Amino acid sequence: MKYTQCSLPKSKYDRIILGHGGGGKLTQSLLSDLFFPAFANPFLNQQHDGAILPVHDGRLAYTTDSFVVDPLFFPGGNIGDLAINGTVNDLLCCGVIPHYLSAGFIIEEGLPFDILKKIISSMAKAAQEANVVIVTGDTKVVERGKCDKIFINTSGIGVVRPDTQISPLNAQPGDVIIVSGQIGAHGICILSTRDNLGFETTVKSDTASLVDIVENLLSGVPEVHVIRDPTRGGLSSTLNEIASTAHVSIELEEEQIPVSEAVCSACELLGLDPLYIANEGIMLFILPGKYAEEALQLIRNSPHGKNAAIIGRVIGDEKAELSMKTSFGRKRIIDMVSGEQLPRIC
Amino acid sequence: MKYTQCSLPKSKYDRIILGHGGGGKLTQSLLSDLFFPAFANPFLNQQHDGAILPVHDGRLAYTTDSFVVDPLFFPGGNIGDLAINGTVNDLLCCGVIPHYLSAGFIIEEGLPFDILKKIISSMAKAAQEANVVIVTGDTKVVERGKCDKIFINTSGIGVVRPDTQISPLNAQPGDVIIVSGQIGAHGICILSTRDNLGFETTVKSDTASLVDIVENLLSGVPEVHVIRDPTRGGLSSTLNEIASTAHVSIELEEEQIPVSEAVCSACELLGLDPLYIANEGIMLFILPGKYAEEALQLIRNSPHGKNAAIIGRVIGDEKAELSMKTSFGRKRIIDMVSGEQLPRIC
Repeated sequence: MKYTQCSLPKSKYDRIILGHGGGGKLTQSLLSDLFFPAFANPFLNQQHDGAILPVHDGRLAYTTDSFVVDPLFFPGGNIGDLAINGTVNDLLCCGVIPHYLSAGFIIEEGLPFDILKKIISSMAKAAQEANVVIVTGDTKVVERGKCDKIFINTSGIGVVRPDTQISPLNAQPGDVIIVSGQIGAHGICILSTRDNLGFETTVKSDTASLVDIVENLLSGVPEVHVIRDPTRGGLSSTLNEIASTAHVSIELEEEQIPVSEAVCSACELLGLDPLYIANEGIMLFILPGKYAEEALQLIRNSPHGKNAAIIGRVIGDEKAELSMKTSFGRKRIIDMVSGEQLPRIC
Repeated sequence: MKYTQCSLPKSKYDRIILGHGGGGKLTQSLLSDLFFPAFANPFLNQQHDGAILPVHDGRLAYTTDSFVVDPLFFPGGNIGDLAINGTVNDLLCCGVIPHYLSAGFIIEEGLPFDILKKIISSMAKAAQEANVVIVTGDTKVVERGKCDKIFINTSGIGVVRPDTQISPLNAQPGDVIIVSGQIGAHGICILSTRDNLGFETTVKSDTASLVDIVENLLSGVPEVHVIRDPTRGGLSSTLNEIASTAHVSIELEEEQIPVSEAVCSACELLGLDPLYIANEGIMLFILPGKYAEEALQLIRNSPHGKNAAIIGRVIGDEKAELSMKTSFGRKRIIDMVSGEQLPRIC
């Protein structure tokens, strides 16, 4: 499929009306004028209640995520590419090659068609970049005021690479923690767009699918134990979860954690800790120490991985806690975030 | 998994707060107190970013649907069982045995926990009845007023039965149309619950998964061409879609279409046509005329199929139109519904 933005035709409506969700002619025209041309592929083109997909013996990975980010458009991306990248990255965390995506839209009556078109275009582009196809979908329209412009759910299926066994359970003493890039960009970017916060920053969201990084790594290194994307709750929540699932402790080195100057300044200004800030284009890899340097090089070879760093290690310790050696040589315990730092980050 | 309602423990919150969607401790407690116990199965219990599922050579069916029904609870069901049954039935329409479901929740801040528990309980029960497992999920919370209590997306995966080739493309002259039960119940039920409509009826929603009907039919009849569930837009939209996809015409017999007296009366009162009313527990089967009686008996053997009837036939005709022979012997063209008869029916 070659996706071209100009292939999206003009609709006779300039806004979504309730009838676009009614299952009748208007729904058909929305699909055939906008969704089908943008996402065209042989599976979606079946236009059946579900897509029929070929599979071979093996293991599938299956995941789902809903996207309610506010605002819809932000520096570096929008809800559309976020919805594709997020689900692709979740699949990558299972050690799989992502293949097929579903997309479910809940749209508020009155949403301008132009906005919808931009979002759909971004989704199609992001899907193409991640080499996945959207094979089945659904559209609902709710009355004005009953949702916030548009919510998107994507689910995804991928095929687990043979001989790959990726799971948070596998983290073990002697493993190192590698992060694929600078942390905190997505959360700070969204914060900066919120009306009432009154601060400006140049930070762009890091939203991206990391197919190439994971493929390079899994093809080049014989043993990778855990892959996770530290989204909501940031590095601290993800690493705490892994520590508690695998019954190990994790020790970070503050000085090794890559954070851009802009994110640093914004965090200082707002009194936030980058370890708790959401990321959308960052991966954590946990693998045996003996492969650390090799893995780091492989990750750095990818455009999204050039700032990758080894940031800590797994230690055998029944406390199952996450700690960090600070720049001043002290050790502090990093707890999981409790409630909500910032709602609707993704 | 044996699901028991009483296994759901009390939470220390009586309402959903934004923090339940933040990805931190509160999200973890929502999952471990409510979602994991209700939906427990070995795949979900992996608690990974996605579920890892075994597959064998063959074809998968994959579908998605979002549910925004208003009200959340209605006679005969609620948004929870609707979200399971709808996706299971969509899978059945592909001629598959449904296996795995995903569930994505968008919850409005302030939703009482009791409501959420009832919905989750219904989902677990409906999943058990349809013999499917919810293997992966996601929860987002949006601010008060930014969605309408709760929206649920489910996607589903099933394995296509070998030697089965179900597709709307397969409808062909000589085929008969069988409907599995009385039409219009779900739509009329939802209409009757809306505040401002001022009419009362005893009609319950027909929401149900029809796994047994489809299994009996596909095991007993060597050739079934099309299976479809006439949900939004009702019988008229579904059959019009099939006619236009397969380039055939379809002729219905008004007198053969099963409609309950209560739905009939409500439709007369409101000036509605049952052919346009949504169903949630009804299937249409299109198959060769020679198997018609055999198929009808198999469908009627299932509890949800006892009112099944042969309601029409496929004829070779380039017009690709849907028509109905009325009780008075006249023929009238049945068009697809254009806009929205009733928003948020499912």
